[in-house]
Amino acid sequence: MYIPIILGTAREGRQSEKAANYVLGEVRKNKDIETELIDVRDFLTKRTDNTRRLPEAKKLSSKISKADGIIIVSPEYNHGYPGELKIMLDLIYEDFHKKPVAFCGVSAGGLGGARMIEQLRQVVIELHMVPIREAVYFSNIKSLFDEKGQITDQSYSKRMGVMLDELLWYAKALKKAG
Amino acid sequence: MYIPIILGTAREGRQSEKAANYVLGEVRKNKDIETELIDVRDFLTKRTDNTRRLPEAKKLSSKISKADGIIIVSPEYNHGYPGELKIMLDLIYEDFHKKPVAFCGVSAGGLGGARMIEQLRQVVIELHMVPIREAVYFSNIKSLFDEKGQITDQSYSKRMGVMLDELLWYAKALKKAG
Amino acid sequence: MYIPIILGTAREGRQSEKAANYVLGEVRKNKDIETELIDVRDFLTKRTDNTRRLPEAKKLSSKISKADGIIIVSPEYNHGYPGELKIMLDLIYEDFHKKPVAFCGVSAGGLGGARMIEQLRQVVIELHMVPIREAVYFSNIKSLFDEKGQITDQSYSKRMGVMLDELLWYAKALKKAG
Amino acid sequence: MYIPIILGTAREGRQSEKAANYVLGEVRKNKDIETELIDVRDFLTKRTDNTRRLPEAKKLSSKISKADGIIIVSPEYNHGYPGELKIMLDLIYEDFHKKPVAFCGVSAGGLGGARMIEQLRQVVIELHMVPIREAVYFSNIKSLFDEKGQITDQSYSKRMGVMLDELLWYAKALKKAG
Repeated sequence: MYIPIILGTAREGRQSEKAANYVLGEVRKNKDIETELIDVRDFLTKRTDNTRRLPEAKKLSSKISKADGIIIVSPEYNHGYPGELKIMLDLIYEDFHKKPVAFCGVSAGGLGGARMIEQLRQVVIELHMVPIREAVYFSNIKSLFDEKGQITDQSYSKRMGVMLDELLWYAKALKKAG
Repeated sequence: MYIPIILGTAREGRQSEKAANYVLGEVRKNKDIETELIDVRDFLTKRTDNTRRLPEAKKLSSKISKADGIIIVSPEYNHGYPGELKIMLDLIYEDFHKKPVAFCGVSAGGLGGARMIEQLRQVVIELHMVPIREAVYFSNIKSLFDEKGQITDQSYSKRMGVMLDELLWYAKALKKAG
Repeated sequence: MYIPIILGTAREGRQSEKAANYVLGEVRKNKDIETELIDVRDFLTKRTDNTRRLPEAKKLSSKISKADGIIIVSPEYNHGYPGELKIMLDLIYEDFHKKPVAFCGVSAGGLGGARMIEQLRQVVIELHMVPIREAVYFSNIKSLFDEKGQITDQSYSKRMGVMLDELLWYAKALKKAG
Repeated sequence: MYIPIILGTAREGRQSEKAANYVLGEVRKNKDIETELIDVRDFLTKRTDNTRRLPEAKKLSSKISKADGIIIVSPEYNHGYPGELKIMLDLIYEDFHKKPVAFCGVSAGGLGGARMIEQLRQVVIELHMVPIREAVYFSNIKSLFDEKGQITDQSYSKRMGVMLDELLWYAKALKKAG
């Protein structure tokens, strides 16, 4: 199973990087999963052309085409998704088809990026993906991780497990059917 | 395959009934599918209690529990879904799990209920369903069907086919994995 | 100023009633505001016809037509709004025009009904209302109020104040312009 | 009255430019309105930092701060908004407060960007803006304009008028109250 993790913001000083690294660590605990971080910083393109001939599109395609599922870790900005994440998702199309996607929301406040996740679910359905129900909400991000980047609330490990179980169920079901 | 069709409005003089009957006829062309109309009128309950012990909940459960997929045909009211449809969807929970759902939107104007579908997709994900990408948009409903209830735009048959193909793919994939 | 408060669920044992009563008390502290609870239980209609000739529609119209603004207190069910609230909002149309509306979300979990509020905002824009930014999120509703129905987190009083300030600003601005 | 028009996509060969130019022409017919195009191409920033000290943020602030209202003309990409538009909207905050905003959607198909508009409305509420109800949907964009960029459906002029009337009503009401 290859399940990459997309870090959805390119902003300097991004807090979501802590959450993404935590998610990466939790996913790596499952030895059946191969994973890596995909950073939206590497896919910003001034042209934002949709012809899929851009080098950024080819690079993204090479990863997504072999993915069995995807995890998106992203902050919520003004109740929506970061622009650079959307630019990246709009780069390619068919490679996303029939793959399950799980969301991890990040927020400075207490609502864990829930509204951003709702908007993104509408987007990924158009990409023919399967947005799963289980999600992880990283609220109050600044205090959730300590100075060393360690999570301070151990209950997140269980939440990650619930999400991964569902994601893997769909990844297997859809791979088998594909 | 058992794929019931939910008619999402209880309003008198509902135009969506024409679309639902058309969808029913198109689905019945596929001899591998058993189907029927589920009318929200039969599931309105003043109590709207969620304990699932209501007779309406039991009746709905008996149908959804054996379904391999669901089609929802519904008008858009004020950019959202009809209240009676939501009351029905909130009646039960586990029976919906891991089943694909396709949407047919109905509107008096030209936008085919697209916004209602977007809102419902967020709801059905919480029900652990799989909202598929392909949808059919019945725009300008009053002129789309003639006095006898026959559709006047034959291109809808092809659109229905595309939607059904995707729905059946997911129905089979999830049934096999289940 | 007349600013009624809509209680958005008819469910038996509804937890949102505590939040609505709290909101009512906070609004009443402002002696310039006349207010009352409008209970969706009084507006459920089996016919859900939209002709606005229903007695429920007339009763609602008599209240909304004289309102300078509205507060909606509602739980989130499956990431959406309660069906009975939507049935009520769909009863009338013009009476809502150019009036500001504030939302209070209620949830059993920690996300305060935020997703329900996002969906409702799309609905009220179609009603030509002005959905304001400030909202109050009543998370973990069961522990937020004690046995006597008293709120246990006093910070909510300040949150209510911020929301009311914005609502009143718009109520005055739109009344003056109207 | 100063009401700038934001062109929401930076994509090469963008069809929305035709719609934006048409909107510009229609707005200019009203001699009481000063207007201009704001092109997201001029506000793309690799850093996407939110500190508002970026030159792009300052440039945008200088325009939005004096605006009495805003019109956003944007295509829908995968049921959402273009990433570059979101990057721009996230650049500044207070300058948007209490200003009305109208939306013009653009789509290759028949749904006029309606879903993008719904998502953006949720975003602009967080910016303390007033999203108005009236919108213009430019469907089937490729055939809607001829080779010279002239619109082929004259009914759009009336639709623009309805939208502008509402936008101006709010612009005046909020300016007076401000």
